[in-house]
Amino acid sequence: MTASETSPPGPAPVRLTPLRQVPAVDAGDDLAALIHAAADAEGLALSEGILVVCQKIISKAEGRMVHLGDVEPRDEAIRIAEEDGKDPRHVEIVLRESVRIVRRGRGVMICETRHGMVCANAGVDLSNTPGDDVAVLLPEDSDASARRLLASLAALGHAGLAVVVSDTFGRPWREGLVDVCIGSAGLAPIADIRGSRDWTGRELQVTTMATADQVAAAAGLLMVKDAGVPAVFVEGVPLGGDGGLADLLRNPAEDLFR
Amino acid sequence: MTASETSPPGPAPVRLTPLRQVPAVDAGDDLAALIHAAADAEGLALSEGILVVCQKIISKAEGRMVHLGDVEPRDEAIRIAEEDGKDPRHVEIVLRESVRIVRRGRGVMICETRHGMVCANAGVDLSNTPGDDVAVLLPEDSDASARRLLASLAALGHAGLAVVVSDTFGRPWREGLVDVCIGSAGLAPIADIRGSRDWTGRELQVTTMATADQVAAAAGLLMVKDAGVPAVFVEGVPLGGDGGLADLLRNPAEDLFR
Repeated sequence: MTASETSPPGPAPVRLTPLRQVPAVDAGDDLAALIHAAADAEGLALSEGILVVCQKIISKAEGRMVHLGDVEPRDEAIRIAEEDGKDPRHVEIVLRESVRIVRRGRGVMICETRHGMVCANAGVDLSNTPGDDVAVLLPEDSDASARRLLASLAALGHAGLAVVVSDTFGRPWREGLVDVCIGSAGLAPIADIRGSRDWTGRELQVTTMATADQVAAAAGLLMVKDAGVPAVFVEGVPLGGDGGLADLLRNPAEDLFR
Repeated sequence: MTASETSPPGPAPVRLTPLRQVPAVDAGDDLAALIHAAADAEGLALSEGILVVCQKIISKAEGRMVHLGDVEPRDEAIRIAEEDGKDPRHVEIVLRESVRIVRRGRGVMICETRHGMVCANAGVDLSNTPGDDVAVLLPEDSDASARRLLASLAALGHAGLAVVVSDTFGRPWREGLVDVCIGSAGLAPIADIRGSRDWTGRELQVTTMATADQVAAAAGLLMVKDAGVPAVFVEGVPLGGDGGLADLLRNPAEDLFR
């Protein structure tokens, strides 16, 4: 008998491997080459799986950084910064990256970004930056970033890959942050199980699972902020198709909290 | 040289193993014995790790089921059911399990449960039930359920375990559902990294990660609804302390969306 004849039906194990040797990334760096080398250092073939890469190193490689000294805050940014105890130049950058502020309070700005995501500070971050005077923005188009990385890794011989770009978001109602997908290539971000039946034969009420967000959250377990793990390789999750961020964003007209 | 001398610093891989041979569960079943046997069937020692168990089998084992035929809907339930095209008896059970309705629209009831969680239909589910006329409620106290299961598994020889009870929730702003923790024992649901510094030496802005929710989401990748995997064993994630659901719930007074 082969192993497959003796195994029970159902999914096989999932393995998450941290890429622990990606060096500090700066504008213009070849991320695919750095990840290729880091995977090699782990003895990891980096094929047939999902590479989760944190947004920060993609933004840095793409030069999505703004020196606060170059920023002239508008009146609204100065007012918000005074009320919330923030740097008005940081607030100015947040406003530039937002199409609107969904909610403000307790020193927090929940913004809808130009990409359609809702998150704190429009994803503009002051941590993990080369200097205290630099803000790191979200990638211009994280799906395109994922597609480029996927193509470059394929050119380096890595086959059967998908890429998920992850970022760390808060949620209403719950404490603590979780990692979510902000862009992808080579996998279906949403698994549509409408019409499926559960093990009693009843049609499922749950209709769609956010696979890419679950993958990002899983990888987040290894992206502990001071451990220097900006990428995680996930094996054992079916790719299920192709798609990007738009699949994960609820139509604002159908959203009860916007 | 030993492996630890050659390995780079940082976290080791995480492994998620599905328990594929847990049978259908009914009221009064000994869940620990069923899980013990299912782990054995996978060749899994079930020690030194986190056991994620879906809420549904815990609720069923605890008899948290209501026959719709036994339910007399109040006027409000009848009115909501008419407006939303629902079974008024289902709505009645949802209202009983709720302290208030946070938002209603598009046929969806977002409720604050008696436990303090905010979720659709107060977690009352009609799928995966023994018959079409039965609703499954959330456990009375999922932390207590997790503690009992942990103690029973310890008595069966499983050491170094933590238990996370997971359920599948929607989110504002994003499509698709993700699995979250609704109760735990033996691990710290929130990893507090305040005061930590990133790899450039700067103090982190991100202060707390929802470890238990990330663990639930990771396990959710294997709890595909028609695959019959109601439990997943997670190895490689530090337990970090002890705590429960209350750690994951935002104080309503500090919540911008309640």
